[in-house]
Amino acid sequence: MSDHTISNGAASGNGHKTAGSALTTTPFPASRKVYIQGTQAGVRVPMREISLTPTKSMNGSAPIANEPITIYDTSGPYTDPNVTIDAKTGLAPYRRDWVIGRNDVIELSDISSQYGRLRAGDPKLDALRFQHIRKPLRAKSGMNVTQIHYARQGIVTPEMEFIAIRENQSREVARELASRNGQGGGVTQHPGQSWGATIPSVITPEFVRDEVARGRAIIPANINHPESEPMIIGRNFLVKINSNIGNSAVASSIEEEVEKMIWSIRWGADTVMDLSTGKNIHETREWIVRNSPVPIGTVPIYQALEKVGGKAEDLTWEIYRDTLIEQAEQGVDYFTIHAGVRLAYVPMTAKRMTGIVSRGGAIHAKWCLAHHQENFTYTHFEEICEIMKAYDVSFSLGDGLRPGSIADANDEAQFAELDTLGELTKIAWRHDVQVMIEGPGHVPMHMIQVNMEKQLKACQEAPFYTLGPLTTDIAPGYDHITSGIGAAMIGWFGCAMLCYVTPKEHLGLPDREDVKTGVITYKIAAHAADLAKGHPGAQIRDNALSKARFEFRWEDQFNLSLDPDTAKLFHDETLPDNAAKVSHFCSMCGPHFCSMKITQDVRDYAAQLQVDEQQAIQIGMKEKSEEFKKTGAEIYR
Amino acid sequence: MSDHTISNGAASGNGHKTAGSALTTTPFPASRKVYIQGTQAGVRVPMREISLTPTKSMNGSAPIANEPITIYDTSGPYTDPNVTIDAKTGLAPYRRDWVIGRNDVIELSDISSQYGRLRAGDPKLDALRFQHIRKPLRAKSGMNVTQIHYARQGIVTPEMEFIAIRENQSREVARELASRNGQGGGVTQHPGQSWGATIPSVITPEFVRDEVARGRAIIPANINHPESEPMIIGRNFLVKINSNIGNSAVASSIEEEVEKMIWSIRWGADTVMDLSTGKNIHETREWIVRNSPVPIGTVPIYQALEKVGGKAEDLTWEIYRDTLIEQAEQGVDYFTIHAGVRLAYVPMTAKRMTGIVSRGGAIHAKWCLAHHQENFTYTHFEEICEIMKAYDVSFSLGDGLRPGSIADANDEAQFAELDTLGELTKIAWRHDVQVMIEGPGHVPMHMIQVNMEKQLKACQEAPFYTLGPLTTDIAPGYDHITSGIGAAMIGWFGCAMLCYVTPKEHLGLPDREDVKTGVITYKIAAHAADLAKGHPGAQIRDNALSKARFEFRWEDQFNLSLDPDTAKLFHDETLPDNAAKVSHFCSMCGPHFCSMKITQDVRDYAAQLQVDEQQAIQIGMKEKSEEFKKTGAEIYR
Repeated sequence: MSDHTISNGAASGNGHKTAGSALTTTPFPASRKVYIQGTQAGVRVPMREISLTPTKSMNGSAPIANEPITIYDTSGPYTDPNVTIDAKTGLAPYRRDWVIGRNDVIELSDISSQYGRLRAGDPKLDALRFQHIRKPLRAKSGMNVTQIHYARQGIVTPEMEFIAIRENQSREVARELASRNGQGGGVTQHPGQSWGATIPSVITPEFVRDEVARGRAIIPANINHPESEPMIIGRNFLVKINSNIGNSAVASSIEEEVEKMIWSIRWGADTVMDLSTGKNIHETREWIVRNSPVPIGTVPIYQALEKVGGKAEDLTWEIYRDTLIEQAEQGVDYFTIHAGVRLAYVPMTAKRMTGIVSRGGAIHAKWCLAHHQENFTYTHFEEICEIMKAYDVSFSLGDGLRPGSIADANDEAQFAELDTLGELTKIAWRHDVQVMIEGPGHVPMHMIQVNMEKQLKACQEAPFYTLGPLTTDIAPGYDHITSGIGAAMIGWFGCAMLCYVTPKEHLGLPDREDVKTGVITYKIAAHAADLAKGHPGAQIRDNALSKARFEFRWEDQFNLSLDPDTAKLFHDETLPDNAAKVSHFCSMCGPHFCSMKITQDVRDYAAQLQVDEQQAIQIGMKEKSEEFKKTGAEIYR
Repeated sequence: MSDHTISNGAASGNGHKTAGSALTTTPFPASRKVYIQGTQAGVRVPMREISLTPTKSMNGSAPIANEPITIYDTSGPYTDPNVTIDAKTGLAPYRRDWVIGRNDVIELSDISSQYGRLRAGDPKLDALRFQHIRKPLRAKSGMNVTQIHYARQGIVTPEMEFIAIRENQSREVARELASRNGQGGGVTQHPGQSWGATIPSVITPEFVRDEVARGRAIIPANINHPESEPMIIGRNFLVKINSNIGNSAVASSIEEEVEKMIWSIRWGADTVMDLSTGKNIHETREWIVRNSPVPIGTVPIYQALEKVGGKAEDLTWEIYRDTLIEQAEQGVDYFTIHAGVRLAYVPMTAKRMTGIVSRGGAIHAKWCLAHHQENFTYTHFEEICEIMKAYDVSFSLGDGLRPGSIADANDEAQFAELDTLGELTKIAWRHDVQVMIEGPGHVPMHMIQVNMEKQLKACQEAPFYTLGPLTTDIAPGYDHITSGIGAAMIGWFGCAMLCYVTPKEHLGLPDREDVKTGVITYKIAAHAADLAKGHPGAQIRDNALSKARFEFRWEDQFNLSLDPDTAKLFHDETLPDNAAKVSHFCSMCGPHFCSMKITQDVRDYAAQLQVDEQQAIQIGMKEKSEEFKKTGAEIYR
């Protein structure tokens, strides 16, 4: 990895080149986009570099520089002022060269889905339609274009190299900087407890390949989504988070959905699921995928249900199959498929406190009962695998029978489905198709770890992707927090991706602020898990921020935080004066009580004695040892 | 406990009898205050009863009643419309009869503290001063008035009986209701994992006495705070939370502080610490104590420092001692005392990322260095015990050397201090003085459990009281969440009380909304821990809320939640129409996709067949078994 070089993103901050739109493209404060080049053509990994101010001494000596730190960046080209953003044309399809270069795809003359052609041919939709739709790619007959297929052939794809560089994030850069400046102290961190995971100190492209080949990690990277920046989901990598967007029968518009996606990734979403259930799902999805630098997931059964007027019993395999192909050719990177909701498991939920709370699960259950037939996604699972491998869509095997309340956690229905997901994982792997497994839901803290353990065993270490879990049911309005607790814990135990929950969960549709709150809460959970797992380099940002805090470098503290805007706003509410941001006391305590100031005094005191702080105290203790005895210092020894 | 009877609080909801003030006295929606009588005179335990609407059937049969549930209530008389509230006179000192009845106290003719007398005699303070100051009580010479002293004599005090009833909270009531109505299903819950704690299924007064006698729980109940409703802090009881209030050099007023206290307990604070550091601390405290139904804690060193103009080196034992007596006679229930910040441990912090972040710790450290002397609270610890037992003030042994960053977690200084706190615990117990131990701070998830284990061992199971811990440093503005994660975990592991953190932590002074957010976040953490420990009855509220949610009883869902106002507001933002609150679909999914509706359809389907749901499916499966085989249902077995 030593051959990576850092190239400049922007010289300086504020020049946005957004072509007339309401999309958020403001770079983060004191941040610039940098790109690290890989060895394979076109591998150019974006990161965010945060510059820091120097440490001022309290005793008049010269300030000491603090080197910038570099962090994992999900925000895509939107925070690079050198990139021209236009939602109407979409992002640059830079990954297309890699896909075509592998020589295993064909460009189709038309889209394959009947429904997709219907929509494409409807002049009433012209105004809604994305204007630069590319012809879809598909695997050549008999070919398999999945990353797991390449990995098992021993091929290190450009995607894998991209990911290796990206996962090393600030780590390598910081190490390099530390060695350059002799500031090794800044990167020390606690060893973690990784519950059997084996995270190497440096992620290599070969390690990425190996984890993907074993099925222990997935790279959601549809060949028809060449705009995406490759990322990986697996427990030996940084914990990822997903945010959901979607228009609904009740609210929203296409433009709002695209901006929601941009807003989500700005705050840290690693993937975005489009859960749209209203009209014009097809067109909305095209806009989102074309503008998304992160993988997009969907739940195809939602759209299939839309096509039959919302009547679950009218669903057919043929409609569902056409929907999979429609979405695969648009570039969706992973599909939630509830193939584990088997007819025999449905009655297990009848006595539950909250029945079936997964929408997809409920739709399949209703269909199964109405027809007295087995779930068609289960019976047609191998055909689905054939579709997945023609486009490299990853499975996200849905937990349609997840518990919807603490009372229902870890019950028979949940674990029966999990065992079936394990069986299906084996089938998908036989086809060289990537798989992750969805998990609950509502689980009290003491029942979380067994969820992780059972999943690893039943699904042979395929990545786990959970919703929360919520650790109590009594706080609607705060379920980002009830679930953030569970998410952090299961992330530590080995969960690879955490699906966010917003404050509006169970109550209503999240607005912009809710989405941000949900994403940041989950970024906290994921990062807390990375620290606890001992993910190499995870602690660099904590250390930099704590050092800034201790040294009253307020602006650095804001800029290093997950949400610089809020941190600064909160500070300014108490001490709006600009002088306060460079003052040597904090607002909570006032000038007399600031413990950090006093600690500084402790150090200064030692400095005045012109000896090492340790020595100062030892000298002091020695000189005064007689006094200590007199004052009774030892009486309790 | 079978002789407890439930008496009515208010007949109905909205009549506030607040004598012209800005204090919040609104009862919670659909809630009334009930009181459970004990066997000892004056034991009358307040609880909040939440009434529920009936379950409507979807098939036209008669609605089924849902019995009310009763919950632990920290809000005091403020939510009882039958009680006249006047901050100028304070709450009724109903516990004074118990104190005097024990025949071991004298009423002093004047307050004992020099500083207190000075303030009392200053006419410039007349306008500020609480008008109905009682003469202080103190133990008769040679007597000990602590709850642990009584407990060790085998005496079950009224306070202990009060607590036993209170801790059983909804449990007994719900059980009674369940047996009365044959609704046993509502109180089933998961067995917990209690990490060696031994929580009985019913808390008896004798169990309370025994836990207090062993030092494994404390009852903070100063004889000069007769307005307080007894509560207990110990790991075999419900996890408690503390919120902080305080005027500061920068902002606030006395009236605001009293309202802040009321606001904190409304949302669930079990104790409140007054951390005032500005002018008129003495007068503010009198107002707060006289109006507080929860124990009040302080950090006396803050006021002592105020008395010497903020110069730590000018502090003396005499000034500190006078401050302890001043506050003890006002009725403060527990004192944070940083007696573990020993001179020899101070240099251990010099190389830390963030030095000493505890204000109290920093003050003592500075004093120690300035004088080359051992911490005077350590050298005078036995004298402090004498003061504590004369008023029954509990120790909260402060963690002055707690880590202020992830980098400093679990270091030498922290654990050296903890060992000293263990030694001091033994001394306090020798004096029959109650003790709890304060803990960190900033700790990554994988290092939390060892904190709890070390504390239990070093301090012989004295209750642990932690600040968070924060599980990452990178989210200023969201530290209620970074710390709520750690708080929930350490609560599960056995921490008895959790000190809240607001979103403004590290940034500024919390406002009203921040306090509420902090308290509710910590109520979530404490409750999640109670569920995980398997605290009997903890799950009743979760079950009731989840049942309401499943049955689309929206108003019940709001009313059962920790924050009914926010839950309702969030719902109404999406579906403001009143009809939506009784509609059989939820706003997230719209009418077609509501999984709960579909689950109901699943059940209705079974009901139509006029057989048990289980049977229905089995019959269906049998009839159609041939079809299943044809459709390939078994191919993946």
